[in-house]
Amino acid sequence: MKIGLIGLGKMGYNLAQNILSHKHEVAAFDVDVNNVNKVKEAGGIGAASIKELVAGLEAPRVIWMMVPAGEITESVLTELKELLTPGDIVIDGGNSNYKDSIRRADELAETGIHFLDVGTSGGMAGARNGACTMIGGNPDAFATVEQLFQDISVENGYLYAGKSGSGHYLKMVHNGVEYGMMQSIAEGFEVLDKSDFDFDYEKVARVWNNGSVIRSWLMELTENAFSKDAHLDELKGIMHSSGEGKWTLETALDLQVATPVIAMSLMMRYRSLEDDTFSGKVVSALRNEFGGHSVVKK
Amino acid sequence: MKIGLIGLGKMGYNLAQNILSHKHEVAAFDVDVNNVNKVKEAGGIGAASIKELVAGLEAPRVIWMMVPAGEITESVLTELKELLTPGDIVIDGGNSNYKDSIRRADELAETGIHFLDVGTSGGMAGARNGACTMIGGNPDAFATVEQLFQDISVENGYLYAGKSGSGHYLKMVHNGVEYGMMQSIAEGFEVLDKSDFDFDYEKVARVWNNGSVIRSWLMELTENAFSKDAHLDELKGIMHSSGEGKWTLETALDLQVATPVIAMSLMMRYRSLEDDTFSGKVVSALRNEFGGHSVVKK
Amino acid sequence: MKIGLIGLGKMGYNLAQNILSHKHEVAAFDVDVNNVNKVKEAGGIGAASIKELVAGLEAPRVIWMMVPAGEITESVLTELKELLTPGDIVIDGGNSNYKDSIRRADELAETGIHFLDVGTSGGMAGARNGACTMIGGNPDAFATVEQLFQDISVENGYLYAGKSGSGHYLKMVHNGVEYGMMQSIAEGFEVLDKSDFDFDYEKVARVWNNGSVIRSWLMELTENAFSKDAHLDELKGIMHSSGEGKWTLETALDLQVATPVIAMSLMMRYRSLEDDTFSGKVVSALRNEFGGHSVVKK
Amino acid sequence: MKIGLIGLGKMGYNLAQNILSHKHEVAAFDVDVNNVNKVKEAGGIGAASIKELVAGLEAPRVIWMMVPAGEITESVLTELKELLTPGDIVIDGGNSNYKDSIRRADELAETGIHFLDVGTSGGMAGARNGACTMIGGNPDAFATVEQLFQDISVENGYLYAGKSGSGHYLKMVHNGVEYGMMQSIAEGFEVLDKSDFDFDYEKVARVWNNGSVIRSWLMELTENAFSKDAHLDELKGIMHSSGEGKWTLETALDLQVATPVIAMSLMMRYRSLEDDTFSGKVVSALRNEFGGHSVVKK
Repeated sequence: MKIGLIGLGKMGYNLAQNILSHKHEVAAFDVDVNNVNKVKEAGGIGAASIKELVAGLEAPRVIWMMVPAGEITESVLTELKELLTPGDIVIDGGNSNYKDSIRRADELAETGIHFLDVGTSGGMAGARNGACTMIGGNPDAFATVEQLFQDISVENGYLYAGKSGSGHYLKMVHNGVEYGMMQSIAEGFEVLDKSDFDFDYEKVARVWNNGSVIRSWLMELTENAFSKDAHLDELKGIMHSSGEGKWTLETALDLQVATPVIAMSLMMRYRSLEDDTFSGKVVSALRNEFGGHSVVKK
Repeated sequence: MKIGLIGLGKMGYNLAQNILSHKHEVAAFDVDVNNVNKVKEAGGIGAASIKELVAGLEAPRVIWMMVPAGEITESVLTELKELLTPGDIVIDGGNSNYKDSIRRADELAETGIHFLDVGTSGGMAGARNGACTMIGGNPDAFATVEQLFQDISVENGYLYAGKSGSGHYLKMVHNGVEYGMMQSIAEGFEVLDKSDFDFDYEKVARVWNNGSVIRSWLMELTENAFSKDAHLDELKGIMHSSGEGKWTLETALDLQVATPVIAMSLMMRYRSLEDDTFSGKVVSALRNEFGGHSVVKK
Repeated sequence: MKIGLIGLGKMGYNLAQNILSHKHEVAAFDVDVNNVNKVKEAGGIGAASIKELVAGLEAPRVIWMMVPAGEITESVLTELKELLTPGDIVIDGGNSNYKDSIRRADELAETGIHFLDVGTSGGMAGARNGACTMIGGNPDAFATVEQLFQDISVENGYLYAGKSGSGHYLKMVHNGVEYGMMQSIAEGFEVLDKSDFDFDYEKVARVWNNGSVIRSWLMELTENAFSKDAHLDELKGIMHSSGEGKWTLETALDLQVATPVIAMSLMMRYRSLEDDTFSGKVVSALRNEFGGHSVVKK
Repeated sequence: MKIGLIGLGKMGYNLAQNILSHKHEVAAFDVDVNNVNKVKEAGGIGAASIKELVAGLEAPRVIWMMVPAGEITESVLTELKELLTPGDIVIDGGNSNYKDSIRRADELAETGIHFLDVGTSGGMAGARNGACTMIGGNPDAFATVEQLFQDISVENGYLYAGKSGSGHYLKMVHNGVEYGMMQSIAEGFEVLDKSDFDFDYEKVARVWNNGSVIRSWLMELTENAFSKDAHLDELKGIMHSSGEGKWTLETALDLQVATPVIAMSLMMRYRSLEDDTFSGKVVSALRNEFGGHSVVKK
């Protein structure tokens, strides 16, 4: 199969190598020509523009977008809509909001173009060596490219999830679960860290990865992290987030699902972005008001 | 009535004045002789030791302890046990754990001494001008001193709550509710503070105190606090805690009651004591491991 | 002043009486003619339609909408926009989302009509006897009707909060705080209820209302509720919500503010709507899978 | 090595088989003679009492207790203390509280008996085929029996964690993490379940187990569970707990560690035990009091 790949960042470049290693062709475009050159070195075909990329593919075309969610995805799709012809298939492998994906599938369907929303998990290593992919959209379009998903995913690592939006929905919820699992592990290690015992965290993570109920890839990554920096002394505990956890929580609110653990995982991330909080000042001021408790002045 | 008062700190000194203003006599002792002298100036009788204080009271004696919970309460009680005689009444007006109060009541009852566990709310101003008191213990002992509680409390501001421990239990839960209310107010003001609007917090607290559903003494104190420092710029948001919120949560766990709001109120206090967290480092390290997300180095 | 009042439900009817009692005139419309008749009996003027209501007012008109947020507010505004003339003032006293209010103010401003977004707190009794009102919008328009707000609100109970949206934003956050306070109180009483003590909840609420740190209108209402049904035996613990708590949380997420207490207050409401949960089934199934722990079958 | 094994329940019986399969001898006792007979059939030696079991072992003896934490563990240890001689090693492989383990190690050390506190993870299958073991206690005693732990654990699946208490502490925290992970997964599936999509949960769990960031043994168990009952229709969502999650939270409170996810995981378990809540009634009553919102009557 010949795949047009747009977006060659951390995930896209690894994906290009993955696709190429399965004897597919890759025609690749990125706003950074250096990234395009890297794919050319890896055996792919370079394109200087989306227009050139599309022109180099025969209908029915298969285009995989691996670009940041939001405005960039929107503008690439707008451009593609002008260039593609009925029967072509556009795959959005980024972390788009599932509501956008439903809308985009509807819009493209009006011109006969198929749109598959694909959640991709497994990090950069997965993108390179075997990803986990969750696919939503038209079932016939999926059938046309199923072989591609089978090739780039680990065994049993792809799932046609249903109608448009279901792929990105599944990825969104996956990330919500991921937030909760990460925070669970993190809280556990903090309870170890504040104790009187003198644990070797790398060894703890290792034993927890061998035979325990909580063995998991995230715990393996924890082991890796501690192997490099035994007490994570070099890091600050600032936890950024890229949106899917928030979307999961917002979706839960819309559906009236109680998801306290996902909520708290996200909120502790927000809290970590602050050196000090206004809410803390209010509570501190109140304790001083009624009890004369001393406050910490700046 | 003549009251022996042990402990003349922030709360005890205000209480002494309160009792004196209701035409009771106060014999007072504190480890700090300056505090004793202040009560003497206010019309009380000073004592140089607990022994002297007890000796100056006629049986059946009424002793009010207003000392820190824990070891100091325990040691004062141990000393009192040797000095008092059957029929005497000891009042613990501090923030003792209700389980200790149950044990102490049992221990003192063996020698015929009554023990009342009294939760006191209302802060320093309340201790001075009219407190809220919740009393547990022997009902006859309570009846003996009911007039005292009526005098020092605001109207309808004292309650005989039941058997030993119930007074401190009620105070403990009161503080748990207080934690939750304070955190609720504090979160609300932070949502105001991070918005694009330009609210005057003192005025907001004032309008919320007049006619709104959330009007409350805590909101009045919020208004006071903002009147002194419009944005609390002088404070750090470090929220200490003195134990009752933790006890409420521990009790809830023992009773298998879901108290998420009290739990989170306490945890945000603990979080505020930290500049950085180990859990944050773990999550940050994990995000870097699987996604190559950049970490913030120290 | 002569006020055109649209919407005569629980809040609107009480508000009509409140306005009338301050020697203003009220021209009133409601989709239910019975409600209109009640206002006529109270001294107001009835209108058979919005058109008739507007026709009966002289420019510059003052129209107060007290209708459900969302579609109904939108459709009433659409109709008013056709009927009103530059300089007229529309007041939305309902629980509209502040983002809608900002948009509506902009849209009406294009035709020279002023729009004030007014959060109203204090429940039905407040609407009748003295409300708490938070007003956003054009400051000149506010000045024109300030006397009305002063009259219908309790002393110090109205606040011009700033530009359009600020009134409803303040009310939204007020409700978020309210959720947290209510859940705090509720958790406290459950910790009492599961204990070995035998508390009289009405008396507990009363003593907490007199002199304690947590004295508040909500605690007074708690006292009232327990005075009618000592153990709330007649109620089911199903906690509905009408949107503002959810909006507060969604806004907090957008602003990256950690609001765990508001979040948990809302989630416990959602949880209360369920007899059983899918998440509970998953955990139960997992415990059975790894530990052979027995599951409860239906 | 010859091991005296006390307690042949779900875990103990599987452990007996595990030990026997590694060419160790097992002398086994259980209060239920049927369990003893099952071990005899599996190649072990039966004992009719703890006394007989101890008598059949040569000093220095190795005794593995696999009995319920709390009173039973305490009474077995009391009996053992009378029977054992200096140099003997007692292993507590149950879920004892680490504070008890520290105390017990100290008490036994007075008579020269070694005590190892061993957290055992991996469920019944792990106990049979390869467990995860975390060991605290005297390092020389551990060295004496290290081969046993190596044999019964999976590769890299045992860890000498440090001084007495550290093994059970590590297991306790492991379970806290487990609570959080399970609740994370469970919340995710509920967000799927309430959506408009029509997911096949077994397939979702499978794809998440292959290549995704959240692949884990718990997710494999989730896949198993859904393979047996596609929507868990046969289960009620009642989530029991056996203590370690609560201990983790209590320990976190003592150490002032914010562990919101572990806290909420536990609280949702408690909540699941209730059909209705008193807190829900209080909030429902309050909403009725101030807003006239309808309540659901029984």
